[in-house]
Amino acid sequence: MNNELLVKMVTDSWRKQLIATNKIFDSLSDEELMQEVAPGRNRGIYLLGHLTAVHDRMLPLLGFEESKYPDLKAVFLDSPDKAVDGIPSASELRQQWHDVNETLSNHIKSLPADDWFTRHANISQEDFIKEPHRNRLNVLLDRTVHLSNHRGQLLLLKKGISRH
Amino acid sequence: MNNELLVKMVTDSWRKQLIATNKIFDSLSDEELMQEVAPGRNRGIYLLGHLTAVHDRMLPLLGFEESKYPDLKAVFLDSPDKAVDGIPSASELRQQWHDVNETLSNHIKSLPADDWFTRHANISQEDFIKEPHRNRLNVLLDRTVHLSNHRGQLLLLKKGISRH
Repeated sequence: MNNELLVKMVTDSWRKQLIATNKIFDSLSDEELMQEVAPGRNRGIYLLGHLTAVHDRMLPLLGFEESKYPDLKAVFLDSPDKAVDGIPSASELRQQWHDVNETLSNHIKSLPADDWFTRHANISQEDFIKEPHRNRLNVLLDRTVHLSNHRGQLLLLKKGISRH
Repeated sequence: MNNELLVKMVTDSWRKQLIATNKIFDSLSDEELMQEVAPGRNRGIYLLGHLTAVHDRMLPLLGFEESKYPDLKAVFLDSPDKAVDGIPSASELRQQWHDVNETLSNHIKSLPADDWFTRHANISQEDFIKEPHRNRLNVLLDRTVHLSNHRGQLLLLKKGISRH
């Protein structure tokens, strides 16, 4: 099987998760985003910031460009929800979320299939020879699974949906 | 070369999700499994049955063997939670969950890499020629993402974990 098809399988899966997650975010008001997904757990807005921070860091990890919003890391990766005062507003985070994903999406679309099987920024050339599965496509696969994990939680914020 | 690599990437991801999900199930008592992941939402036991039913149906879908527990479909796929009286007990479902995943795992381990890129049972030979990405590996990728989605929800049943 050619590399194009392998890449299509993973990039399709990524895109599908992103569309499904955006559908949830778009259906939630800013007030609903301030709710916890379950009592005592993360708020929707924290998960929005967390996902934005993780996707933003995919830009340098995949060798595309520098992080666009490096300040998100301290609030949404290094700290749990409700630990930091004065987090960005919902509308600011929504804009950053769309910006990061659009930037990622443009790079993803234009990366040649063979380049997906080259190493990502967090593995040395030496280690990559021994572990060639630790390539850029594997980063996208891992982040697709990560996105799905949180999408399942965000779904709980939607009213009137009790199934799955 | 890249066929083997992609099979390793996807089967590793599947295994990793399964290990992480089992860690949650194993840490929950039968009583905790009866709790809803969030108010008014699915109970842990429903998600256990749902995941077992979905994984059980992967056996014929991937061309491995017949479903082992076809009766789960009516309760955990065709019906929402709390719609059916007299669902199987937690201990029965735990046993079926492990049985199904062990059976799947043995097949997954022994399937040659190239066979992963052949069609699954739900696509015709004719359609597969036009859409070769709809292969058996893509089923495993899709079910890995599905598992992660529900793992994120099951995590909410664990006490004393407020992050992610």
